Amino acid sequence: MAKEIKELTSRSESYSQWYNDLVIKADLAENSAVRGCMVIKPYGYAIWEKMQRYLDDMFKETGHVNAYFPLFIPKSFLSKEADHVEGFAKECAVVTHYRLKNDPNGKGVIVDPEAKLEEELIVRPTSETIIWNTYRNWIQSYRDLPILCNQWANVVRWEMRTRLFLRTAEFLWQEGHTAHATEQEALEETRKMLNVYADFAEKYMAVPVLKGVKSANERFAGALETFCIEALMQDGKALQAGTSHFLGQNFAKAFDVQFADKDGKRDYVWATSWGVSTRLMGALIMSHSDDNGLVLPPKLAPFQVVIVPIYKNEEQLSQINEKVEGIVSKLKALGVSVKYDNADNKKPGWKFAEYELKGVPVRLAMGGRDLENNTVEVARRDTLTKETVNCDNIETYIANLLDKIQDNIYQKAFKLRESKTICVDSYEEFKEKIEEGGFIYAHWDGTPETEEKIKEETKATIRCIPIDEDKVPGKCMVTGKPSAQRVVFARAY
Amino acid sequence: MAKEIKELTSRSESYSQWYNDLVIKADLAENSAVRGCMVIKPYGYAIWEKMQRYLDDMFKETGHVNAYFPLFIPKSFLSKEADHVEGFAKECAVVTHYRLKNDPNGKGVIVDPEAKLEEELIVRPTSETIIWNTYRNWIQSYRDLPILCNQWANVVRWEMRTRLFLRTAEFLWQEGHTAHATEQEALEETRKMLNVYADFAEKYMAVPVLKGVKSANERFAGALETFCIEALMQDGKALQAGTSHFLGQNFAKAFDVQFADKDGKRDYVWATSWGVSTRLMGALIMSHSDDNGLVLPPKLAPFQVVIVPIYKNEEQLSQINEKVEGIVSKLKALGVSVKYDNADNKKPGWKFAEYELKGVPVRLAMGGRDLENNTVEVARRDTLTKETVNCDNIETYIANLLDKIQDNIYQKAFKLRESKTICVDSYEEFKEKIEEGGFIYAHWDGTPETEEKIKEETKATIRCIPIDEDKVPGKCMVTGKPSAQRVVFARAY
Repeated sequence: MAKEIKELTSRSESYSQWYNDLVIKADLAENSAVRGCMVIKPYGYAIWEKMQRYLDDMFKETGHVNAYFPLFIPKSFLSKEADHVEGFAKECAVVTHYRLKNDPNGKGVIVDPEAKLEEELIVRPTSETIIWNTYRNWIQSYRDLPILCNQWANVVRWEMRTRLFLRTAEFLWQEGHTAHATEQEALEETRKMLNVYADFAEKYMAVPVLKGVKSANERFAGALETFCIEALMQDGKALQAGTSHFLGQNFAKAFDVQFADKDGKRDYVWATSWGVSTRLMGALIMSHSDDNGLVLPPKLAPFQVVIVPIYKNEEQLSQINEKVEGIVSKLKALGVSVKYDNADNKKPGWKFAEYELKGVPVRLAMGGRDLENNTVEVARRDTLTKETVNCDNIETYIANLLDKIQDNIYQKAFKLRESKTICVDSYEEFKEKIEEGGFIYAHWDGTPETEEKIKEETKATIRCIPIDEDKVPGKCMVTGKPSAQRVVFARAY
Repeated sequence: MAKEIKELTSRSESYSQWYNDLVIKADLAENSAVRGCMVIKPYGYAIWEKMQRYLDDMFKETGHVNAYFPLFIPKSFLSKEADHVEGFAKECAVVTHYRLKNDPNGKGVIVDPEAKLEEELIVRPTSETIIWNTYRNWIQSYRDLPILCNQWANVVRWEMRTRLFLRTAEFLWQEGHTAHATEQEALEETRKMLNVYADFAEKYMAVPVLKGVKSANERFAGALETFCIEALMQDGKALQAGTSHFLGQNFAKAFDVQFADKDGKRDYVWATSWGVSTRLMGALIMSHSDDNGLVLPPKLAPFQVVIVPIYKNEEQLSQINEKVEGIVSKLKALGVSVKYDNADNKKPGWKFAEYELKGVPVRLAMGGRDLENNTVEVARRDTLTKETVNCDNIETYIANLLDKIQDNIYQKAFKLRESKTICVDSYEEFKEKIEEGGFIYAHWDGTPETEEKIKEETKATIRCIPIDEDKVPGKCMVTGKPSAQRVVFARAY
């Protein structure tokens, strides 16, 4: 593929431009001819595939099954849940016709006015309505519960300002939709999936996250409670990385989904929904990468190790090829994914820069001296350090190194978050500190009005009311009214 | 989930009703509230997931990578390739607006007339146009070739008459789109993917297929040559199970995609595309199943073995549980997927019928007598036979049995196809034999007119011009003109 000049804008110069450069130059994604819709390129998609695979395994381990529901939602369905329609029925893609015809006045095709749909169809922005309309026929008694379905799908929200991965009109995601006989069971499910998301973010993406609940203002349209995981990017802005919603009986009531309990008593079904999207790609990129390019945690890297030969002539290359083959097969036997790049149309220096840009966790280089000494040069992407290592048991050395890198990337992100997390007690201090970015723990009186005022004056929102921390009461930094616990503010993506 | 009465219409009574009953009652799929769009239920989706996994592995083994392109296609793109627009721009979902608003005259929402798109967007019926528009920016020189991308996606074709899995407005599929420097390489790719599809159909689905090329009438809109695999269903109707298209330079010309060769000479890029869809589910169901329900090949069964305990009291159940646990873990160690159903709210007879309906390849039943004798009853779904087997090394026995079943299902389908495949030489005989269904090998003069006449008079189409068979010339059964080889006719789904 055509290579542009690989130089990135530095993060200090413009974090936002650095991000855009990186997504494009590392071949992750690009804008398409359709406004707001992206093309996910093979290298970016390979990372997303790994995310999907691990998440899917975690969903199945927790008892969920996959299914598939229609892309289109009849317009009237969106109106059935009052809050939901306010949140989702506004900026969306509307299908009004089902046929094109040849333009009688010239070339090309036009919409056939005779093929107008009786009821418009909305391209799903989320699937609660079509799924609960379906569940009505699946549920009669408590024996049909719980239903624990997930779907991997594309959704469309007609965003006006889009950024690759972070906010696009079409994006890929998974949406879990579960149905339960009791409120408690639904609440447990909501929390269970929040924990699955947090585990995934921390163990696979190496991104530390705060777990919490959203304030009423930031809640999912139609939910009684929205749980979330929040991550902090290197520029000090927060990014919501996943949400898990307790929907109460709202959708069951909107779509009349009732069940008979063991005594034959009828009640509405309790619901949850939860989702993560290709937005995680944005979180992954912004959490770890540097001015040289991507830094990928080994668990999500399309290939974990690249090997580059450095040779003077064909004979030396064939000796290196032979030596490397042995290393490759030993690495593969340990489950390490590895690419040997002995293409002869690119110089080693070019390859080094390319794989650095693409965030390959470990690079091995082997030259003539290495052949003589039975060694190989091992370069780490996360620390940019190099060392010369003996080839005996190199596979074990690399496998351990990958674990170390995974851990180091997480620790680095964790320390960065810690260094950018503060407590403030006065609104004056808050207004000053919020300019520096980061998570700010502060007291808030619990009202939407105060939250709105803070947002207007500082562009900061409540990212979450943390659930894993001690609840020490205090006084709202703005109004002085009582506060049950500190909440987490930040400016956010 | 709510259980209907499980009795199926028999195949002899109405093959078509049997199919519909089976899809619904085996919990594979159902119609949704959106006309022509289906819900793929968890049991059906689990089979599709297995198909996806194996196909995806085969694509990657042959050097392909996954990517993702937009759901929407600007209307003008469809007009750029003349044949393509004729084939695909007609019955499709057209997005004309991007916003809803509250209805000022009442409840609910209406389309906001002010939010009309300047250019309408078509929900992709297939992605050649948007992908080749993207490839233009990816390709400058021969060094950027080949591009070997695949995408797993949903597509929409506004079909008027729909049937679950076989023909739905929205369906799931994969579409490979490759770009090459030479005609020969593109042709090799087209054939390579045809062979991948044929291998998948035969080895995983246990469905024998004919490989061939389509006549001009049946060719993909925009292709120079369409290769296909054709399967024969139990009712004697053919089903096209996959296609691989050689697109020549048509799309490169339509979207101006040129490359410079080693000498700097510029030429248009050569293209292929190839796809299989959830239609394969229809082929799978109709190839093997019987009047008792689904028959699934072990390689695609969501679980390959089900174990049902038969017990008089709790004590006996706990003895059986213990015994079965050992069997389950030994089966899992061999990679056999197994479900132990000791739910106490259903009787064994109900469970037997349920798993028969759902096509579980092997059912084990263990009762008090088996406990005493260290035996288990083994029932095969494909032959409906039972035998009592000693528990020692039962896991090896079962693993071998699954291979046998996979092979037997294929052989049965193969024999059925052979018994329904004939040669005819006169059009009179053709018209008589076509009523019985099956593949008919006959001579044809190669003209669209004759093909059209045969279709009008007999409802039979040329399924393919076979590529793996001896080309013996003869005379067209209709016109008496020369024919290069026999072609395969059938009535088709």
